[in-house]
Amino acid sequence: MSTEAQYLKVLADIFEHESAELEVGIGDDGAVIAPQKNSLVLSTDMAVEGTHFNREWSSLYEIGGKITAANLADIYAMGGEAKYLLVAAAIPKAMTIEELTSLATGIRDEARKVGALVIGGDLTRSETLTIAISVCGSVQTPILRSGAHVGDVVAISELPGKSSLGLELLKHGIKDDRTLAHRYPQVNYKKVQELDRTLVHSLTDVSDGLIEELNAIASSSGVAIELSSSLFGKDIHTLHGGEDHVFVGTFSSTPAGWIEIGKVVEGSLVQLDGQVISHQGFMHF
Amino acid sequence: MSTEAQYLKVLADIFEHESAELEVGIGDDGAVIAPQKNSLVLSTDMAVEGTHFNREWSSLYEIGGKITAANLADIYAMGGEAKYLLVAAAIPKAMTIEELTSLATGIRDEARKVGALVIGGDLTRSETLTIAISVCGSVQTPILRSGAHVGDVVAISELPGKSSLGLELLKHGIKDDRTLAHRYPQVNYKKVQELDRTLVHSLTDVSDGLIEELNAIASSSGVAIELSSSLFGKDIHTLHGGEDHVFVGTFSSTPAGWIEIGKVVEGSLVQLDGQVISHQGFMHF
Repeated sequence: MSTEAQYLKVLADIFEHESAELEVGIGDDGAVIAPQKNSLVLSTDMAVEGTHFNREWSSLYEIGGKITAANLADIYAMGGEAKYLLVAAAIPKAMTIEELTSLATGIRDEARKVGALVIGGDLTRSETLTIAISVCGSVQTPILRSGAHVGDVVAISELPGKSSLGLELLKHGIKDDRTLAHRYPQVNYKKVQELDRTLVHSLTDVSDGLIEELNAIASSSGVAIELSSSLFGKDIHTLHGGEDHVFVGTFSSTPAGWIEIGKVVEGSLVQLDGQVISHQGFMHF
Repeated sequence: MSTEAQYLKVLADIFEHESAELEVGIGDDGAVIAPQKNSLVLSTDMAVEGTHFNREWSSLYEIGGKITAANLADIYAMGGEAKYLLVAAAIPKAMTIEELTSLATGIRDEARKVGALVIGGDLTRSETLTIAISVCGSVQTPILRSGAHVGDVVAISELPGKSSLGLELLKHGIKDDRTLAHRYPQVNYKKVQELDRTLVHSLTDVSDGLIEELNAIASSSGVAIELSSSLFGKDIHTLHGGEDHVFVGTFSSTPAGWIEIGKVVEGSLVQLDGQVISHQGFMHF
């Protein structure tokens, strides 16, 4: 059995599953899924060693979970439910079958949290460990960034910034439990699944920083957003830290369990305590 | 405007399109497609500079086209029609906006050959140019590798090996027109689109080499395949060369315009002129 065949056998075992909708699974030229009655929501994300993650700080299990969470969060930020994942990975020659198993198990376990299945992929070689995940989900009525109305409240599912703080600690050689939020952020998908949809006008997840995401909502909706630090502080990690994948949106009234941070008004841009606040988010570019 | 915003603006312009089915396009957390009446066929492929392509030999336009063709071929090898693409790319810092434009235009132009649209993606940084494409297509009745029957004829849509020959020439410093088949293989999607489906029992595309693919058909179908070099020669590139993405399958009788190369018999493995012939295909692993 070739090395590739051995690796693919291990992956097939990790991702093995039963699904009435899955007509053809891993092992042919493509996977086949039964017709879907809802609209499809599709998203892709790529993560590169040294840019998005660091094996000195994170286990491969954590890396797999974190990348998967980033992908799944996009589907929930659209108001959808994630169902199927395709995983493409370019792995260095030195990577062992045990390491690949940890990475794949991290991906599978995070996907399982929402009942999503890995149904296909591609495995190749690169000097730089690189993982691209595409997610196919279902959605009845998508929630867009462009739906904010003047008069909406702006609210977040929880305070972002923990991943950014964790990264800063790791850069200073500190590896305590606070760094877990960077190594493997725990995305609270239920916060969107359980939302009263009649309240929601716009929604996204905080990938690049809260202010960056709110600027995207403001510009695509043609509105301004006024934030008040009296409601949630003005910690630099909270304002500009990315990768927590908390959810932020605008609502006719604040949903139960969400944190109100400001309001939607006429105009453009995002203000904090009356001052325009610009993008400083953590960008992978 | 940030560098990333400039790059994303260029990409949005290149991939701009109209589609009645597309409910949400590029620019939100995910793309949304109207419900599909057929089954979905999904596939992903990743290509890495130095492993799958070489910028000394190939233009970025060719690289974009080649990677897209490899992805689309998987959908047609399942008997499907490609519809939507997600493109994730990790690009080196030195890559200019003109170079990114060439790459993206190559992707778009190949997708247009079959009417498929790029509806989303991700752009990030890596020292190694890496591109992952996922394709979502529709299929009524998938054609599997596992469908070969004893008594079938084995046939190919055209002779493979041109890409492999082109690669060998490039390695020897020869850059004539014969190398184009390696730099940018032209996949004949119509050969599958126009197939009489009542004849087809199994099908795949030649990504890793004809013998490798026939071994996959034989093992997944539980049959043996007997090839005769009197029908198609025994050139090493034809037998083991990958990446042409010609189609190979087994049929109740040879389809018009296809080349018969052997037959399906009881047993296991692939034989050429009575000798078992093992995998030697070009693997990216």
